[in-house]
Amino acid sequence: MGDLTTTIKRVQPADTPSETKARERIARLTMPPGALGRLLELGVRLAGITRSITPPTARKTIVTMAGDHGVVAEGVSAFPQEVTPQMVHNFVAGGAAINVLSRLVGAAVVVVDMGVAADLSALAEAGKIVSKKIAPGTQNMAAGPAMTREQAVAAVEAGIDVVEGLCSTGLDILGAGDMGIGNTTPSAAIAAVITGRSVREVTGRGTGVDDKGLDRKVAAIEKAIAVNRPDPSDPMDVLSKVGGFEIGGLAGCVLGAAANRKPVLIDGLISTAGALIAARLCPAAAEYIIASHHSVEIGHRAMLEEIGVEPLLDLDMRLGEGTGAALAMNLVEAAKRILTEMATFDDAHVSTQLSD
Amino acid sequence: MGDLTTTIKRVQPADTPSETKARERIARLTMPPGALGRLLELGVRLAGITRSITPPTARKTIVTMAGDHGVVAEGVSAFPQEVTPQMVHNFVAGGAAINVLSRLVGAAVVVVDMGVAADLSALAEAGKIVSKKIAPGTQNMAAGPAMTREQAVAAVEAGIDVVEGLCSTGLDILGAGDMGIGNTTPSAAIAAVITGRSVREVTGRGTGVDDKGLDRKVAAIEKAIAVNRPDPSDPMDVLSKVGGFEIGGLAGCVLGAAANRKPVLIDGLISTAGALIAARLCPAAAEYIIASHHSVEIGHRAMLEEIGVEPLLDLDMRLGEGTGAALAMNLVEAAKRILTEMATFDDAHVSTQLSD
Repeated sequence: MGDLTTTIKRVQPADTPSETKARERIARLTMPPGALGRLLELGVRLAGITRSITPPTARKTIVTMAGDHGVVAEGVSAFPQEVTPQMVHNFVAGGAAINVLSRLVGAAVVVVDMGVAADLSALAEAGKIVSKKIAPGTQNMAAGPAMTREQAVAAVEAGIDVVEGLCSTGLDILGAGDMGIGNTTPSAAIAAVITGRSVREVTGRGTGVDDKGLDRKVAAIEKAIAVNRPDPSDPMDVLSKVGGFEIGGLAGCVLGAAANRKPVLIDGLISTAGALIAARLCPAAAEYIIASHHSVEIGHRAMLEEIGVEPLLDLDMRLGEGTGAALAMNLVEAAKRILTEMATFDDAHVSTQLSD
Repeated sequence: MGDLTTTIKRVQPADTPSETKARERIARLTMPPGALGRLLELGVRLAGITRSITPPTARKTIVTMAGDHGVVAEGVSAFPQEVTPQMVHNFVAGGAAINVLSRLVGAAVVVVDMGVAADLSALAEAGKIVSKKIAPGTQNMAAGPAMTREQAVAAVEAGIDVVEGLCSTGLDILGAGDMGIGNTTPSAAIAAVITGRSVREVTGRGTGVDDKGLDRKVAAIEKAIAVNRPDPSDPMDVLSKVGGFEIGGLAGCVLGAAANRKPVLIDGLISTAGALIAARLCPAAAEYIIASHHSVEIGHRAMLEEIGVEPLLDLDMRLGEGTGAALAMNLVEAAKRILTEMATFDDAHVSTQLSD
């Protein structure tokens, strides 16, 4: 169940012949060549990912991975840590933004406790959340590693495990979201270490810290990198030293989706940090990633470029939870329907272009 | 029915107290301040347009206005003119991109013959399209006015009439689309005349003309402007001399929506040219316009800026028909649901920000 090495070995590149077939069909559809732009590229990618020019899209799930962060002791967040479990309860009650947007696009929301610093066992026992708790929050990375290497591997494998479970009951499109007070801090740390950019360049205001809070955040990340010296060429080292449990879980979601040939929509800074870890562990996994939106968080763009994906939406969002992934699921569905439901020039007796 | 002067008089600015109420509600929802970015702005705009913080959005219609253009004689399009009626038949059969995307978002498609150069009376008699045919195609604007001033007024009033009809049976959100071989040419002409930019700056490749075709298109527009001398301060003069019947109809759609306090999603170059005419006829109507996407067509941005709206999507599309409007309807629906379905901090017992 969820073994990392086995899963990585299962990941194959996207299927070029299916992409070619999709392009051939698109060329015959009743519109000027390429007139639906990125929606058509998305259709081609779906074909390559699923090995089908009628890619299934009906069964949609957003996995929202929750975890807490010892680094909040450094004063890096505008919200108190108890908001993480409070928001988990809000997800379960259906009142959060991710619930609203998932209902709109017909996606289920699966909340996973990867390491919330509160007892959520009652929710897990009632089947309202999935418990994969590694520990009740990471250690403060400004003082030492956020977690052990074993915990990092366990977090990634837990994410794989969640996706394997979803695939066994039926999954067509996965969305990857997060919840965790303080988690833009480890995500920015991962961005800095892996992309080689300065901490200041990739660190934003998260849920809304002021200038002093931003300075504290940058200082905490710089300290964490100086204290832990994560090795940029070893993604599991980076995850363990300056990452988070939900970030590891999100990396596992991407690997699990890729191994099962399912498209995975990543969301904002945190799920993209997880995706970047996954893409470094297994480069072919990047071919299964669809970037849903461009977050306001300044480190996001750098990580998307590193993965090699271009976001679909740019709506000045920075909420997380998987909200961008939910909105973009409608575009994935649109791409699939264009590929499968439109008439061809022949079907519709429409004249093609003038020879000129 | 559809009287222009009466309709313009009915248009009131968006309602500021409803916008304030929407902002107050949004501030209490369980997310960091402003974290859903433009989705929240859209919610505020919907409140102002509809005078409600629970704006109705269920009844969605895309109006696709079709017309032909005498200027095709100048060799400005990559497709032959018979494609306009062929595509009308494709819309009726449900096989075009606009049908696929409208089905996805739960919108009806209403096709209007504003001036197709073919006999579509059988479709109209069967109730499959609405006939508001002003004439079978405009005159060649490179040789004289595209239409008379009376025809221009009749086209706008026909658009108003269509929207009045929709409102009488039930309409919450309108999308404005177009079909007409050659219609990026009059749209670019309108852009050049009203924004004061050079023809070259606002003229793109439409359905895909090559370099020579683009030169012919620029030359035809320059000739049309030189021959007709449209008065930039008189939108009806611009519409009659270098416009099109479907463009007039689209201007009417915008005015009709504004008079009835309904949001109207504009699409690409052609519907934006219609919206620009409407906004010049009645500046307050601009407050009811939501720009769905940024088209590849280079004149689009200039007209959106002139109207004062920022597009929601940017997916390298340039198809028309209302396809961008259909995709963006999902974002309007999302904005409404965020406003109405999310829990507040109090409801969900979630802590608000630290005082710091």
